[in-house]
Amino acid sequence: MAVQPAQSAGTARRDLSGDALAQEVFDRFAQTEPARFRELMQALVRHLHAFAREVQLTEEEWFAAIQFLTRVGQTCSDTRQEMIMLSDVLGLSMQVIGINHPAVDGSTESTVFGPFYIADPKVYPNGADLANGAVGQPCYVTGQVRSTNGGPIAGAVLDIWQADEEGLYDVQRPDLTEPQGRGRLIAGPDGRFAFWTVKPEPYPIPTDGPVGVLMHAANRSPMRPAHIHYMVSANGYQPVTTHVFSTGDPFLDVDAVFGVKQSLIGQFDRHDPGTAPDGRKLDQPYYTMEYDFVLAPASNGTA
Amino acid sequence: MAVQPAQSAGTARRDLSGDALAQEVFDRFAQTEPARFRELMQALVRHLHAFAREVQLTEEEWFAAIQFLTRVGQTCSDTRQEMIMLSDVLGLSMQVIGINHPAVDGSTESTVFGPFYIADPKVYPNGADLANGAVGQPCYVTGQVRSTNGGPIAGAVLDIWQADEEGLYDVQRPDLTEPQGRGRLIAGPDGRFAFWTVKPEPYPIPTDGPVGVLMHAANRSPMRPAHIHYMVSANGYQPVTTHVFSTGDPFLDVDAVFGVKQSLIGQFDRHDPGTAPDGRKLDQPYYTMEYDFVLAPASNGTA
Repeated sequence: MAVQPAQSAGTARRDLSGDALAQEVFDRFAQTEPARFRELMQALVRHLHAFAREVQLTEEEWFAAIQFLTRVGQTCSDTRQEMIMLSDVLGLSMQVIGINHPAVDGSTESTVFGPFYIADPKVYPNGADLANGAVGQPCYVTGQVRSTNGGPIAGAVLDIWQADEEGLYDVQRPDLTEPQGRGRLIAGPDGRFAFWTVKPEPYPIPTDGPVGVLMHAANRSPMRPAHIHYMVSANGYQPVTTHVFSTGDPFLDVDAVFGVKQSLIGQFDRHDPGTAPDGRKLDQPYYTMEYDFVLAPASNGTA
Repeated sequence: MAVQPAQSAGTARRDLSGDALAQEVFDRFAQTEPARFRELMQALVRHLHAFAREVQLTEEEWFAAIQFLTRVGQTCSDTRQEMIMLSDVLGLSMQVIGINHPAVDGSTESTVFGPFYIADPKVYPNGADLANGAVGQPCYVTGQVRSTNGGPIAGAVLDIWQADEEGLYDVQRPDLTEPQGRGRLIAGPDGRFAFWTVKPEPYPIPTDGPVGVLMHAANRSPMRPAHIHYMVSANGYQPVTTHVFSTGDPFLDVDAVFGVKQSLIGQFDRHDPGTAPDGRKLDQPYYTMEYDFVLAPASNGTA
């Protein structure tokens, strides 16, 4: 659609269809403030109308889309964000992450936020068991938070959340009275952190809502490769929201939300029953996984 | 964005951003059935990613959009459809109407459906008072339903709905126990219909929800010119969903939903107290308005 300056008023604003209608809607956003919001709305209008005209959208299709988006909104609750999941499966979330977090030399890459984060999680001491009863195989996770200039970042904050062995986050289990597989750690003076959890497993994104209907209609797999979510931050550094995936996971190349990055794949090593690195004695097999995070200074100045 | 055939699998499906990510999402819809749904989803993916990249959408803006659309969905109820209203103020509803209802020689033009239709309204006899107590100045409406071949259409069905003098539809008044300004008429053997109602007045679309916030931020008027909604149908004919507007209305050129067509403007004539054309005696001023509807045959065959 070619966008031209506003037309004069009068009957030019009646009987609008096609390009002329798209132009009038575009013009009607001309007084939007601030300028950035105007830019967003006018670009949205151009693309929305171009899409409808390109596909010659029928009224039945339009109404199906209205009903779908309404259901997506109504499926959202305090513990479920279906609209984010829709953005995720359309790849929009990863597109926005790519726009805003281009790879910075040596720093940990970002990936999707997902719909299951809860702000201000419970703080655990280093070495604690964040599983807090979640079902799954024990897994001891260690790592260090460092700066891109090489030094450790003392006191870095790590928010950690993950699904259990059955692929469910704590917020998807309404019977729970306490968080499971979720918590906050503070890295030590050497930037190091450690915690127990359960080994993450691949799981399907929730398919009992409208996004599940879409994925089914598109004949797309709802599976995500196993992962642990991290949000790592420290004063003077750019925070990173990311996952750590697992080597050899069968779903790394078909992630339903397009979130996999090669640099984010960690190694989960299996061990026979015995004494773990922190001295804990286990009478069942357990896993260890070590993965470091590297943050870039918040600006080009010294961090 | 240039769209190419699917890439090979493997690590080509990791570390995706920009064009490569948009391409992968596009490809991931390749197995969508039927083909028309695939076409829609793939075009949507192209435009959605092109929009995000063109404006370099920030994460804050993305999240504001997620929250906005969630609120739009959650504002919908049995009697309010905020998602349709969003489509209306973005001009999308009229764009879809233009695509699907190009002007057919001599037939009544279509305009927006709006969010306030209720299916299967109460049937009134011709000449009845559809106002049913709605506040406003009495108005006697008459007209004929005809075919584009010139003849009257006996038994044509007219669903009629409108706001009262205060700009509110009955469904916006939770205290009402019966419909007001809403009903169904059946045209007589001569295709003619008549009813009493209240004179429609300009009104703002509801501004107490997220669409109202958008309109305010865009510095756009929420006003719609006065109108009566009609859905006119008859066996063997293409139905039409439309409005009749009022000559001289100050909002004809700034309709918040871009719905005005010159051919849909009727003349509301004011009369001093006295005897109306149907013999009704009024001790207050009243209005008359005559507007005919013309339907095209459902196919090119004889109707």
